[in-house]
Amino acid sequence: MQGEPEVAVVRLAHRPGRDDRMTTHVGLTARALGADRVIYPDNADQSRQTVEDITGRFGGPFEVELVESTKSVVRNWDGNVAHLTMYGERVQDVEDEIRASRDEDDEPLLVVVGSEKVPFDIYEAADWNVAVTNQPHSEVAGLAVFLDHVFDGRELDREWEDAESTVVPKATGKKVVPADGEDGNPTDE
Amino acid sequence: MQGEPEVAVVRLAHRPGRDDRMTTHVGLTARALGADRVIYPDNADQSRQTVEDITGRFGGPFEVELVESTKSVVRNWDGNVAHLTMYGERVQDVEDEIRASRDEDDEPLLVVVGSEKVPFDIYEAADWNVAVTNQPHSEVAGLAVFLDHVFDGRELDREWEDAESTVVPKATGKKVVPADGEDGNPTDE
Repeated sequence: MQGEPEVAVVRLAHRPGRDDRMTTHVGLTARALGADRVIYPDNADQSRQTVEDITGRFGGPFEVELVESTKSVVRNWDGNVAHLTMYGERVQDVEDEIRASRDEDDEPLLVVVGSEKVPFDIYEAADWNVAVTNQPHSEVAGLAVFLDHVFDGRELDREWEDAESTVVPKATGKKVVPADGEDGNPTDE
Repeated sequence: MQGEPEVAVVRLAHRPGRDDRMTTHVGLTARALGADRVIYPDNADQSRQTVEDITGRFGGPFEVELVESTKSVVRNWDGNVAHLTMYGERVQDVEDEIRASRDEDDEPLLVVVGSEKVPFDIYEAADWNVAVTNQPHSEVAGLAVFLDHVFDGRELDREWEDAESTVVPKATGKKVVPADGEDGNPTDE
């Protein structure tokens, strides 16, 4: 988020077709929940397009990057690395340390979201292997809870720049307004 | 979770093939993050099987139910209904009220996870339409953050019954042991 050390999310691997929605959801979740950037393998161009389209419509700043080797990104990261895995340490046990590395040491954070088979050197390259429960569930769910804990809920109040549209919270129904004004020509149901 | 009013998650609609992984992840996330039950439309039998398989291996209690009409489940729910939608009220603004309805009034909670087009009567049937950010991202991410907020993180310490296997949190690598003992024949990497 603006005014904080960078948080980037890297999706380690992607199988076109089979993983399209999950990979897109990893990027959209990273964006919505306070990360600054998502890094995809270069065969995930479709997910890149979707995330950039959403950023264009609902605002940023948020970057999407395609790279040839996501493993090189992990190996060469200048900052801390948290790898999300059900085999790791419990998020509630390491989150204070991770937050301190940001608040006190101003270190950028790379969050690694795995895929089917994560090579052992990723576990070794990580400063923390972190489990959002030691149960099998969803890389998207794990990423969401992890970011919400790292940011301590601040990301829910994040403001968006250069949006075309803004959703206005509503007890019932839908209200979408042009981002620059409160009224204009609202879509209201 | 055990000793608390029930939390059930209903997946409103499912498109076999296209939605298989998302629907499965909704169920696995519900289970891992403290819900007692997931309710699927009856064309989601494949997701039911996967979630039941995981529950058999890693423990419960957790139930999976197939129903003919998920909308009837919402309409006839005896308790409170929270519908997750990017158009709703901000989770940080309504979570205290939702928690109070459980802690003080002992009300069961039905969490509605949408699909492509949610009919307007679902918005009306809900006690709360809740947005985990008013941004488009992922129904799985929204469910995860919502449950973590409703349970206030307690679900991360949930204990599991009748598991075959338990993952032991580890700083590096993987350790899985038979659930009834700490050693036995651990799979350790």
